[in-house]
Amino acid sequence: MDNKRSCLGVNDQNRLTIGGADVAELAKAFGTPCYIMDENKIRSNLREFACSLKRHYPEKSRIAYASKAFSCAHIYSICDQEGVCADVASGGELYTAMKGRFPANNIYFHGNNKTSTELRYAINLGVRCIVADHADEIRQISAIGKELGKTLNIGLRLKPGVEAHTHEFIQTGKTDSKFGADIASGEALALVKEILEAENVKLTTVHCHIGSQIFEAEPFGLAAMIMMKFMAQVKEELGYKIPELNLGGGFGIYYSGDDSPKEIADITKAISHFVIKAGNELHMPLPELVLEPGRSIVGPAGITVYKIGAVKNIPGGKTYLSVDGGMGDNIRHALYGATYEATLLEGASNERTEIVSIAGRYCESGDFICRDILLQPAKAGDLLAVLDTGAYNYSMASHYNRVPKPPVVMVSNGNPFVVVRKESWEDVAKFDNVIATRGRS
Amino acid sequence: MDNKRSCLGVNDQNRLTIGGADVAELAKAFGTPCYIMDENKIRSNLREFACSLKRHYPEKSRIAYASKAFSCAHIYSICDQEGVCADVASGGELYTAMKGRFPANNIYFHGNNKTSTELRYAINLGVRCIVADHADEIRQISAIGKELGKTLNIGLRLKPGVEAHTHEFIQTGKTDSKFGADIASGEALALVKEILEAENVKLTTVHCHIGSQIFEAEPFGLAAMIMMKFMAQVKEELGYKIPELNLGGGFGIYYSGDDSPKEIADITKAISHFVIKAGNELHMPLPELVLEPGRSIVGPAGITVYKIGAVKNIPGGKTYLSVDGGMGDNIRHALYGATYEATLLEGASNERTEIVSIAGRYCESGDFICRDILLQPAKAGDLLAVLDTGAYNYSMASHYNRVPKPPVVMVSNGNPFVVVRKESWEDVAKFDNVIATRGRS
Repeated sequence: MDNKRSCLGVNDQNRLTIGGADVAELAKAFGTPCYIMDENKIRSNLREFACSLKRHYPEKSRIAYASKAFSCAHIYSICDQEGVCADVASGGELYTAMKGRFPANNIYFHGNNKTSTELRYAINLGVRCIVADHADEIRQISAIGKELGKTLNIGLRLKPGVEAHTHEFIQTGKTDSKFGADIASGEALALVKEILEAENVKLTTVHCHIGSQIFEAEPFGLAAMIMMKFMAQVKEELGYKIPELNLGGGFGIYYSGDDSPKEIADITKAISHFVIKAGNELHMPLPELVLEPGRSIVGPAGITVYKIGAVKNIPGGKTYLSVDGGMGDNIRHALYGATYEATLLEGASNERTEIVSIAGRYCESGDFICRDILLQPAKAGDLLAVLDTGAYNYSMASHYNRVPKPPVVMVSNGNPFVVVRKESWEDVAKFDNVIATRGRS
Repeated sequence: MDNKRSCLGVNDQNRLTIGGADVAELAKAFGTPCYIMDENKIRSNLREFACSLKRHYPEKSRIAYASKAFSCAHIYSICDQEGVCADVASGGELYTAMKGRFPANNIYFHGNNKTSTELRYAINLGVRCIVADHADEIRQISAIGKELGKTLNIGLRLKPGVEAHTHEFIQTGKTDSKFGADIASGEALALVKEILEAENVKLTTVHCHIGSQIFEAEPFGLAAMIMMKFMAQVKEELGYKIPELNLGGGFGIYYSGDDSPKEIADITKAISHFVIKAGNELHMPLPELVLEPGRSIVGPAGITVYKIGAVKNIPGGKTYLSVDGGMGDNIRHALYGATYEATLLEGASNERTEIVSIAGRYCESGDFICRDILLQPAKAGDLLAVLDTGAYNYSMASHYNRVPKPPVVMVSNGNPFVVVRKESWEDVAKFDNVIATRGRS
């Protein structure tokens, strides 16, 4: 394949490979549809983030993998082995991290509305930091800390008033977001005061997250300056030094067309420089720095393999390839209008000369994976791979039409193994109670 | 509540009821979030469709519940008891129907890309009709019929060139859809010829489905005329009388605002008249008639109950209520921009005076269930019901953020029972393999 996709290749039978393994062979072994990921690519992305951030940022730094992008037990094992933290957004992700034997004290627990069950679970496990979203959560955490006779690390989600998305970003002053506390209006400072006055909690982190699929560095610079100014204000007005700054994630990856992601090392370099610059301008010591990449770790490491069931020539000149998956395993086109690139497995290096749309198998007219993309000439029975599906595909999968979720197969050094097993019809229906029928009325 | 929602009421404690049961009591018993449905409402909707169609249409008619709207074992039991057929769109829905002890010979099997496993499963069970989508499916079904020495009933999905959605509809002549065979271009006639020439299959039905959330009758009239003309053409040119016309579903329901659904009896009356009129004009005997309501059966029969975790006043004047569910259990706002009405459970008859947005708990900025709707003044800890969530909510639910799916509770004559049990964190992670770790590198 191309430079953008270092985990993919073409072998001497002109077939697509991922992590050195022949994808057609994997499809034969594991069936279709099938999510396939390259473990080495995930590891190298994690290392690149962690090492380059250490290289560019003079104070302590850490990477927390944003596991909502792709969560299963094994991914947390990988993160632990690579020495990075993880961020979770629910009790279910936290449970999964524990199943993957991930150390709780390396976990950031996010979310705009954690249930009290989730808060207790996280606290009992001893997570590194619960990033509180609003006053009620602060009170709940404080009360639990008091009850347990422990002091709990607490973070605070802030709205810096920067909204970034792909190539556009705006500084709004106030953000119309369901997450966190607004800086500009004074809401954030009031909450910090509340944390500092609360018992059994310690404010360790301020956190923001300014968007997703961001390709430019500038919005991070803007956010870093606003967050650092806020930390300076807290020091000055409340006399408290917040030790850590968490700038979240949102780093764009290449899906198609004009997507122009930065190299990981360039992201960490730019952000480090922004924070250092802010520290210099504000005459404040640098905080510890956390970044939370998710999509940029797993997105480019994954593909989804489908079998073409029918090639339909639509009156008007369009060609639709109907595949054996769709919006149940990849809802991003239907949900965000996302697009992807794809290739046939056989003849993978052949030129993509046809314009086709990949239609799913779900009983809904909007069920497409992508529209009007280039592909090699295809026929019914051919296998194809949709590329860069490692993030927000499996994690958002549904059982729409009661279609079982595909397996997730990981390849490590050319060897495949199943990290999430394939579901069956029985699995999908297993929560259904069969009620004693009353007989035909 | 109001006339639009006959299954809802308010009891003498001024609390919301569904099917006569106190919703707050149900929430206490089953937790939140929780899908709750009124079985009597589902049954009366099915009866109303079936009986009024029989009243208005002189030839044989039947209703097939479009189970993609809400599929679990129990709903098929209800359909069987009410004497209606079911339509399924996958092997998983068919499996679920079997779990609900539904007779296979009352099942229509739809889908634009059925796998060969699914086709064999359906044929072995002896479904009433497989509605074929394209030539390759016809060939596959014929081959399986030959192998088994059986003649299999086959339907054909057609594109009548009518596209309808809410209050708009167009006649395109050719439809840019992934489903079925185009009538105008001659594709459909060629496929009918192929079916008539194929061995071990018998063409019993032509089927179309012109859209969803349709409030007007006219597009069904247009589709009926085009389909009947096609049937007349087949009779004339190929000498074959197709016995059954299946006009699909797409009947709109009330969600909010300007939604103006017809009464069920008015839908069946209008469609009957359209088909009768077409028959008269074309001088052809009336075919048997099938309609496939889904949303209009279960949508208005269901609500989802959430607990408010936080009330957030957003700078700029908006109020966000963060609830303990969201896009994982109801993706329709994020996916289609759908909206809903809602009420607090306590004080349900009180005036809805506040404009609020209901934000979900998922870690995504677009995770809202509805925006800028009227609600009674609410505080953290209050329970609320989002109304008319019986269709395409549970059926499209995901495990995003690894949040378990809520249970589905049905109420029958005031008595609640669980038809889909609540999932746990363990359930969500149970397909994850824990791979032997290599030790920290």
